[in-house]
Amino acid sequence: MSNLLHVIGSKQFDKAALGELFLAAKEMEQLASQGGANHFGDKIMCSLFFEASTRTRFSFESAMHRLGGRVIGTENASQFSSAIKGETLEDTIRVVSSYCDLIVMRHTEVGAAQRAAAVSTVPIVNAGDGSGEHPTQALLDLFTIQKELGRIDGLHIVMIGDLTYGRTVHSLSYLLSNYQDVKISFIAPDNARIPVYVKQYLEEKGIVYEETPDLLKVAQTADVFYQTRIQKERFPSIDEYNKAAGKYIIDLPLLDQMRKEALILHPLPRAGEIHADVDADPRAAYFRQAQNGLFMRMAIIEKCLGV
Amino acid sequence: MSNLLHVIGSKQFDKAALGELFLAAKEMEQLASQGGANHFGDKIMCSLFFEASTRTRFSFESAMHRLGGRVIGTENASQFSSAIKGETLEDTIRVVSSYCDLIVMRHTEVGAAQRAAAVSTVPIVNAGDGSGEHPTQALLDLFTIQKELGRIDGLHIVMIGDLTYGRTVHSLSYLLSNYQDVKISFIAPDNARIPVYVKQYLEEKGIVYEETPDLLKVAQTADVFYQTRIQKERFPSIDEYNKAAGKYIIDLPLLDQMRKEALILHPLPRAGEIHADVDADPRAAYFRQAQNGLFMRMAIIEKCLGV
Amino acid sequence: MSNLLHVIGSKQFDKAALGELFLAAKEMEQLASQGGANHFGDKIMCSLFFEASTRTRFSFESAMHRLGGRVIGTENASQFSSAIKGETLEDTIRVVSSYCDLIVMRHTEVGAAQRAAAVSTVPIVNAGDGSGEHPTQALLDLFTIQKELGRIDGLHIVMIGDLTYGRTVHSLSYLLSNYQDVKISFIAPDNARIPVYVKQYLEEKGIVYEETPDLLKVAQTADVFYQTRIQKERFPSIDEYNKAAGKYIIDLPLLDQMRKEALILHPLPRAGEIHADVDADPRAAYFRQAQNGLFMRMAIIEKCLGV
Repeated sequence: MSNLLHVIGSKQFDKAALGELFLAAKEMEQLASQGGANHFGDKIMCSLFFEASTRTRFSFESAMHRLGGRVIGTENASQFSSAIKGETLEDTIRVVSSYCDLIVMRHTEVGAAQRAAAVSTVPIVNAGDGSGEHPTQALLDLFTIQKELGRIDGLHIVMIGDLTYGRTVHSLSYLLSNYQDVKISFIAPDNARIPVYVKQYLEEKGIVYEETPDLLKVAQTADVFYQTRIQKERFPSIDEYNKAAGKYIIDLPLLDQMRKEALILHPLPRAGEIHADVDADPRAAYFRQAQNGLFMRMAIIEKCLGV
Repeated sequence: MSNLLHVIGSKQFDKAALGELFLAAKEMEQLASQGGANHFGDKIMCSLFFEASTRTRFSFESAMHRLGGRVIGTENASQFSSAIKGETLEDTIRVVSSYCDLIVMRHTEVGAAQRAAAVSTVPIVNAGDGSGEHPTQALLDLFTIQKELGRIDGLHIVMIGDLTYGRTVHSLSYLLSNYQDVKISFIAPDNARIPVYVKQYLEEKGIVYEETPDLLKVAQTADVFYQTRIQKERFPSIDEYNKAAGKYIIDLPLLDQMRKEALILHPLPRAGEIHADVDADPRAAYFRQAQNGLFMRMAIIEKCLGV
Repeated sequence: MSNLLHVIGSKQFDKAALGELFLAAKEMEQLASQGGANHFGDKIMCSLFFEASTRTRFSFESAMHRLGGRVIGTENASQFSSAIKGETLEDTIRVVSSYCDLIVMRHTEVGAAQRAAAVSTVPIVNAGDGSGEHPTQALLDLFTIQKELGRIDGLHIVMIGDLTYGRTVHSLSYLLSNYQDVKISFIAPDNARIPVYVKQYLEEKGIVYEETPDLLKVAQTADVFYQTRIQKERFPSIDEYNKAAGKYIIDLPLLDQMRKEALILHPLPRAGEIHADVDADPRAAYFRQAQNGLFMRMAIIEKCLGV
């Protein structure tokens, strides 16, 4: 992998490609600290967000600007784009790809990025497709683990919260399957458990995992705690949401049980599932993780546009 | 016409001006293929969209970026601008024109661009004013015809679909009236026919036109088929819309009737009125047409800002 | 004050700081007339607008572009940001500040900018926090008075309209308290009078003020008329709004009463409280005032980012 054609799902990355991306992201961090670069002064990135995500959009747009590039975009295309006039995604992409050099796309439907890539004349980066995948989030998550703990092989990772609708959990699980001696514990409310197809993929790859209701039990030994928000907007009903919310919280008492070298991650935004008084602890890495998103996305953009 | 003051309606362009614009757009196409230019690094274009139009906005913003310029803008000003606080369009334009060097404006009301031009201190480009005009779309449509067929004089152009509310049809008709031996066939559902004032203008200019319900009859001889979407959002009722929709479709059987040198255009987005299996035919020029929009808008921006 | 850490409220500026800002804004005016500068090609400003304000946002974004900088932003974050997912403002700012070099922020809640500054790693500029403050508007208002009349000491300023919810009136009153022999007349409908806490602040600072219902009486002697819009959206009910609206209007008969050297200001947008036929009078300075916003905001950005 010297260059990337499209970034659609995390299964497209093998261990060598991930290593290359981590190296590139580290270089981007240094570049950003020196005021960025002017590699892409004549390139245009289009942020095509059919579903709003201010944070993810800012991260990509900032990355493009730090590389000297230009940005056009839409905050929330679903409300007012050609979509409401009955246009297909394929037609939209055919036209938009003639106006830019790279499309970063969030969509409400699983598989939308793949459909876009099939007709686009420029690289497509999937910034989330419904409850499908969110590969660049998983890449920055994994980059953060590598950067903070120095390795991924041999780690015990606990994933907590909305494991059914949490696409970052799925994408991160797929990425982790590239590494040796990794162990994953899935901890979720009964109506938000990890899907069968994710478990099947891990089994095929020989990854050891468990599903357990007992966060306290794994707290003392695990290396990484990947907490997620119970996503109200994706649950079928408010009843189902209420059953799931508030069950697994990271707070100071739990923190006391964790190893000194443990790492607490969260794709953000959070809504109470990590208490604010945890923030000051050096193991709370979620804001550093967010910043790593900038460097990883700079690396992805550079791989897509070519150097 | 070396420079443009404002671009308000298509009637402001004569044949010489159109020729100049086509030449400039061709130069822009070459410029864009070489990575664009840095002519306007210190210029700011404002995309002032009171009505959303992702495609048209992207096209203009991309054009400005390809010329090295800067962009500020609003995706959908009507929902949250000063307009809801009771401000007149004139006041908005007086203020906004002091923040930028060029305003590209879409508005819901006929005549809005003209009103804006009357008070603006910078050039105004009309990107659509209600059911009024959309001159830059007509310019790129005509540029596409010229580029694909090598001439405009003597052509037989068929305009199909929503001819009442379709402002691109009106604007294109006005532009065509500059050429010799042009013939226009208007084909529309009964409740979406070409307005009297368009026909009167063509008569004054000595342009031959007909209104006919029979698409099949003209299919075998016409040079250009300009298909348009029945615009649900502009019809007075869903009943009226349903009467108009689906009546005239371009599909493979119709394509079989057309001349080998015919050209199929559409301002896009489409919603079923050209079947997707037509796309692969070389006569299907609508995606090339969309890309020509970029080059034409680069030319228009350059004429407005001066070189 | 060589540089600014944050711009939160107008009370943070003393007379010396204001003098420095006025000087800087004058320099920016000259710079802008020469096509701007390229001071901040590697800097990113984030327009974080939780409440829409097209005019203010354009003014800041144009200012950043005129200084060569880059912009990311959101037009109306409240409708679709992480906020609706339950994220705290503090978390949002922690993340966003890792993606940019400066945050310009409008929020619906009083005190939001202060809370943001407490956790941000980059400068925060308050572009309005609910019915709290709007310091950069007050700075450009005062800059306009200084520029047009050559002084602020000794002036008689009349503030008219929505003095309860009009945060620009509060912010401007605080700034005026830095000057000598200033006199303020507050003229408001009964249900929109100047708050007690503003009056107390002026008393502490020894500023002479009066509340009077009689605009005609002060018209003949005052130096500056600062008219404001009755802000329908901030009144508790339509009844209360109707009681307040339309009571104090600046029209040609009133203009006839004013001194030849008087100055009419308005933060805009207006909705009838200054008649359009007043616009042509040289005393009508509100559009020049809007343009001064560009220069003042260029000065503020430069002070925040450092030169």
